[in-house]
Amino acid sequence: MANRTATAPPAEQPPGGGLVDHHCHGVARGPLTGSRFTAYLTESDAPAADGTTFFDSQLGFAVRCWCPPLLGLPAHCPPADYLARRAELGADEVNRRLLGATGITDYVVDTGLADDLTTHHELARAGGGRAHEIVRLETLAEHTADKAGTGREFLDGLQEAVHATARTAVGFKSVAAYRHGLDFDPAPPGPGELRAATDRWLAAREPGGRLHDPVLLRHLLWTAAATALPLQIHTGFGDPDLRLHRSDPALLTDFIKAVRPTGCPLVLLHAYPYHRNAAYLAQVFPHVYADVGLTLSYTGARATAVLAEVLELAPFGKVMFSTDAYGLPELYLVGTRLFTRALGRLTQEWADEGAWPAAEVPRIAGLIGSETARRLYELPA
Amino acid sequence: MANRTATAPPAEQPPGGGLVDHHCHGVARGPLTGSRFTAYLTESDAPAADGTTFFDSQLGFAVRCWCPPLLGLPAHCPPADYLARRAELGADEVNRRLLGATGITDYVVDTGLADDLTTHHELARAGGGRAHEIVRLETLAEHTADKAGTGREFLDGLQEAVHATARTAVGFKSVAAYRHGLDFDPAPPGPGELRAATDRWLAAREPGGRLHDPVLLRHLLWTAAATALPLQIHTGFGDPDLRLHRSDPALLTDFIKAVRPTGCPLVLLHAYPYHRNAAYLAQVFPHVYADVGLTLSYTGARATAVLAEVLELAPFGKVMFSTDAYGLPELYLVGTRLFTRALGRLTQEWADEGAWPAAEVPRIAGLIGSETARRLYELPA
Amino acid sequence: MANRTATAPPAEQPPGGGLVDHHCHGVARGPLTGSRFTAYLTESDAPAADGTTFFDSQLGFAVRCWCPPLLGLPAHCPPADYLARRAELGADEVNRRLLGATGITDYVVDTGLADDLTTHHELARAGGGRAHEIVRLETLAEHTADKAGTGREFLDGLQEAVHATARTAVGFKSVAAYRHGLDFDPAPPGPGELRAATDRWLAAREPGGRLHDPVLLRHLLWTAAATALPLQIHTGFGDPDLRLHRSDPALLTDFIKAVRPTGCPLVLLHAYPYHRNAAYLAQVFPHVYADVGLTLSYTGARATAVLAEVLELAPFGKVMFSTDAYGLPELYLVGTRLFTRALGRLTQEWADEGAWPAAEVPRIAGLIGSETARRLYELPA
Repeated sequence: MANRTATAPPAEQPPGGGLVDHHCHGVARGPLTGSRFTAYLTESDAPAADGTTFFDSQLGFAVRCWCPPLLGLPAHCPPADYLARRAELGADEVNRRLLGATGITDYVVDTGLADDLTTHHELARAGGGRAHEIVRLETLAEHTADKAGTGREFLDGLQEAVHATARTAVGFKSVAAYRHGLDFDPAPPGPGELRAATDRWLAAREPGGRLHDPVLLRHLLWTAAATALPLQIHTGFGDPDLRLHRSDPALLTDFIKAVRPTGCPLVLLHAYPYHRNAAYLAQVFPHVYADVGLTLSYTGARATAVLAEVLELAPFGKVMFSTDAYGLPELYLVGTRLFTRALGRLTQEWADEGAWPAAEVPRIAGLIGSETARRLYELPA
Repeated sequence: MANRTATAPPAEQPPGGGLVDHHCHGVARGPLTGSRFTAYLTESDAPAADGTTFFDSQLGFAVRCWCPPLLGLPAHCPPADYLARRAELGADEVNRRLLGATGITDYVVDTGLADDLTTHHELARAGGGRAHEIVRLETLAEHTADKAGTGREFLDGLQEAVHATARTAVGFKSVAAYRHGLDFDPAPPGPGELRAATDRWLAAREPGGRLHDPVLLRHLLWTAAATALPLQIHTGFGDPDLRLHRSDPALLTDFIKAVRPTGCPLVLLHAYPYHRNAAYLAQVFPHVYADVGLTLSYTGARATAVLAEVLELAPFGKVMFSTDAYGLPELYLVGTRLFTRALGRLTQEWADEGAWPAAEVPRIAGLIGSETARRLYELPA
Repeated sequence: MANRTATAPPAEQPPGGGLVDHHCHGVARGPLTGSRFTAYLTESDAPAADGTTFFDSQLGFAVRCWCPPLLGLPAHCPPADYLARRAELGADEVNRRLLGATGITDYVVDTGLADDLTTHHELARAGGGRAHEIVRLETLAEHTADKAGTGREFLDGLQEAVHATARTAVGFKSVAAYRHGLDFDPAPPGPGELRAATDRWLAAREPGGRLHDPVLLRHLLWTAAATALPLQIHTGFGDPDLRLHRSDPALLTDFIKAVRPTGCPLVLLHAYPYHRNAAYLAQVFPHVYADVGLTLSYTGARATAVLAEVLELAPFGKVMFSTDAYGLPELYLVGTRLFTRALGRLTQEWADEGAWPAAEVPRIAGLIGSETARRLYELPA
C-alpha cells in the first residue's frame, strides 16, 4: 500500500473476520492482450464503439483507481502503462498481488463457465483463502445431455448429478434469466410435460448445445430446490443474451411462493436496476436473500449510492457481499474495495447522524460481509 | 423531548399548521408480545429468518432511534429494554405519548382492516386530533356479500352502501393491487359481465371470503369514482399477497384516463419502488395525486433520498404526507419524524444552493404536509 | 450575468468547445400568455389542478432560478413579474438573450411538431449557432399519406421521402412509444403484412390523421435504419398519450439486436425513469447511445442525482447532452445550466475523492457535451 498515491481513496478495513465472496468465478490463466483485458470490463459481446473505450466507464475508472498501486504504479496511470506492467509481472504474480489484497477468506465459486479460467481451488490458493463450489444447473444439464442416449437416461442422470453435486458443492446457480427470462411458469413441470420437453430438446440438440427450454429450466430449479441447498438465481443486468425487463426478480414472486415449503433458500444475484425489488422480496419472504455483487463493481464511483438503495427494504441480515469477479483479479480487488468503502461510508453517515446505533455498525457490517453467507452456505468459521 | 439523548437526531418542527395524515390505520389494543411487535415492523407474513431479526432493518433502526426517548429511555437502547418499558407503561400511555408527539392534527383512517385495532375515533382521541374515515371498497363489498341472498341483492346493497358511506367518509380506498394486480381492464364492466361475475363469486364464496374477481374489483372502482370522493389506490410494495410488478401505478394509465371525466381524484398510495412513476402520473393527469406514506417509514435513514425522488416529477401541490401507520403508535412517530426531517433537509439544501426560493419553502412544506390533503378531502381548517 | 442575485447558483462553464444540443425543438413565435407559458412547463395536456400551479415544480423553480437574471430581474422573482418583463421585452429579445446565454453551438432540431414554432434555421440564428435537422418519421409518413392516392403510392412515396431526407437531415426520430408502445414485433414487416396495414390505415384515415398502426411504425423504423443515419427513439416519460411502462427502452432489446447488422446507431432519448435501463443498453450494444435531455430540465434541483444514475452503467462515450427544449427559450437555458452544473459537480466530486482521474475530466465532459454527438451526427467541428 506504500506505493498508493495521494489521489487514490484510502482503503477502509474490511469488516472483521474477512470477507466471504459468495458469488465469483475463476480468473484467466496466462497473459492477457489489451483487447481481452477490456472485454472483461464490460457485459458487451462486441468491441467498444468507434471513438470509445471500455476504460471510459465507472468500472474502467475503478480499475484504474485501485489496481495500479498494487503493481507499483500511480493510481489512474494510463491504461497502456498498466497493461505493460501487468505483462511484465506475469499473470501469476498479478493474481497473487491483487487477490492477496482483497481480504477475502472464502471464495464461493460458480464453476459453470466454459472459458479457460482457474478452478476454484487454484483461485483460492492464489488468494490465500478457502475454496467452495457453486454448481451451475444449466451446465450440469448440458453435460448430462452430452452423455445421455435417451430422455430417460438424461432425466435419471440429471437427478443423480444434482444429488452427487449436493454432497460436494455448497449451492446451485440458475441462469434461467439468460436462457428464457424469469417469467416462467412457477409450478414444477408434470411428468408428461417433462418427458415431452426432454425428448424435444434432445432430438433437436447438437452436442454442446445450450438449454433454453423453459420446462427443463423449471425442472432444474425444482430439482435443485429439493436438495435444500442455497439456490442462486441470476437476476437483473448481464450480457446481451438477456432481456433486462424479463430479468426483474419480481417476476419470480410466484415461484418464490411455490418453492417456500421446500426450505430452499433463494439468493437473488445482482438484480440491478431492479435491486430495490430484490430487497423487497428479501424482506417479505423468509427464504429470500439479496446479493450486492457485480453491481458495485460496475457502478464504481456510484457504488455507495447503489448499495444504499439495496439497504432500504432489505433486512440487514439478508444482504450478502460478492464480487461476481470473472476473468480478471482486478475485479476482485475493485469489488472488495468498493464494497468496503461504500458500506463504511453509509454506516458512518447513518451512525453520525444518529439514525443508526453506532455500536452496532460492526455487527451489521459483519453480517453483510461474511456472517450471513457463512451461515447460509454452512462454511467453516 | 428533554430525555432525548445526544445520539438522536434533532426533531425538526412539522410544517406550520400541523400534519394531516391522509392514510393511516388503527393501533393495537392492549399489550403486545415481542413477536407481535416485530411483526408490525415488516410486510412479511412469517417470523424473521434464522439468525435475523426485523429490528435489523431501516424501519427497526428508525423505531429504535426515535421512540425510546419518549418512553424515558436512551435512543437505540436494546430492543428488549424498550419492549419491557413499553409493557410497564401500558398500551394506553404509550399510545398517548407517541401519538401526542407526532404533530398530527387530522387522522384520515382506513378502517377496513379486520385486526383488533382502535377505531378512527379512538385513535384520534389518543393522539389529540380529529378523526376522518376512509372506507375500503373490498371490505365494504365483502360485508355486503355476507348479508346478500342473491346477486341482485348484492349489487343493489353495494350501490347503497357506497352511497351511504359517501355521506360520512371522506374517501374510498382500493386494494385491487393485492387482490388481482393493477393490470385490469380499465372500462367499467357491462351489466351482463357484472351479473355473471357476481353470481360466480357468490356461488363459490364461503362466508367472510375475500373478493379477488377482477370484474367486481373494477366495478367497485367505478362505483366509488361516481361519488367523486377521493379514491385511494394501493400501489407499489406491500405484504407478500402482492406481485410487485403488477402493482406498478403506470399500469393504471388507461383507467386513469377512462375515469377522468367523472372528476374523481385518484390518490396513488406508497408506490415504492415505482414512486417515480406515480410522480409522473401526478404531473400529467390533473386528477392524480401521489402519497409518500409507508415508504419513508420503511426506508428510514434513506427517507430523504426517497422523498427526493418523488419530488422530481410530481408537482409540489400534488404530493401528500401520510404515515400508513398500522398497529404500532411507533409507526406514527417514525413516519412523522422521518417526513419532517426529510422534507426539512431537502428544502434547506435546495434553498441554500439557490435552486429553490427560500421564502417559499414554508408554503411548499405546508402543501405537502397538510394543505393539499385538507383541500382534497375537504377537511376543516 | 451582473444582475444575477446572490441566491442564484453560479453558472459553471460549459465543457470546452461549447455544447451540441442533439435533440431539441423550435420555440414559440410571438408573445405568450401566462397560461400558454405554463403549459410548456409540464407534459400534462390540462390546466393545473385546483389550488396548484405548474410553477410549483422542479422545472418551474429551475426556470425561476436561472432565467430572471437574464431579463434583469432577481432570481426567483414572482412569476407574474417575470411574465410581465418577458412581454415588455418581446419574444425576439427574450429568445436572443436566453438562447445566447446557453453556450450551444449546434442545434440538432426535431422539426416534426405541428405547433407554430421557429424553424431550425430561425432557432439557430436567434441562438447564434448552427442548425441541423432531425426528421420525425411519423410526421413524414403522415405528410406522405396526405398526398398519396393508393397504398403503393404511399409506400413508394415514403421510401423516396426517407431517402431524400437522408441527404439533408442528420438523423431520424421515432415516436413509436407514443403511438403504440415499444413492445412491438422487432422484425421488419413482410410485404403482404405491410400492404395490408397500409391499405387498412389509408382507408380509415381522415386527412391529417395520425399513424398508430404498429406494422407501419415498424416499417418506418426499418426504412430509416437502412439509411444508417442515427435513429433517435423516444423512450420513457412524455405527455399523457403515452403508457409509461410501455416506453421502457428495455422493451426494444430484440429490435436493437435485429437492427444491429444495418449499422444504424440508435439513440435512446430521455428514458426517465428507465434511464438506468437505457444506460445498460448503451453498455452492451455497440450501436446504442443514451441521451440526458428533458430529464435534467424536468428534475431541476435533482438533475445531479439523475445524471449520476445515467453514468452508472453507460460508457462515458455513449452519453449525449440535449435539452429537448420545446416552445420556450427558457427550457434551453435551464437545460444547459442544469447539465453543466450537474456534470461539473459529479466529476468534481469523483475526482476529489480519487475515484476519477482529475486530469481526464475535461475530456469526458467534452465527450458528453459535444464530441460524441459531433461524431455520431457528422457535424462540422
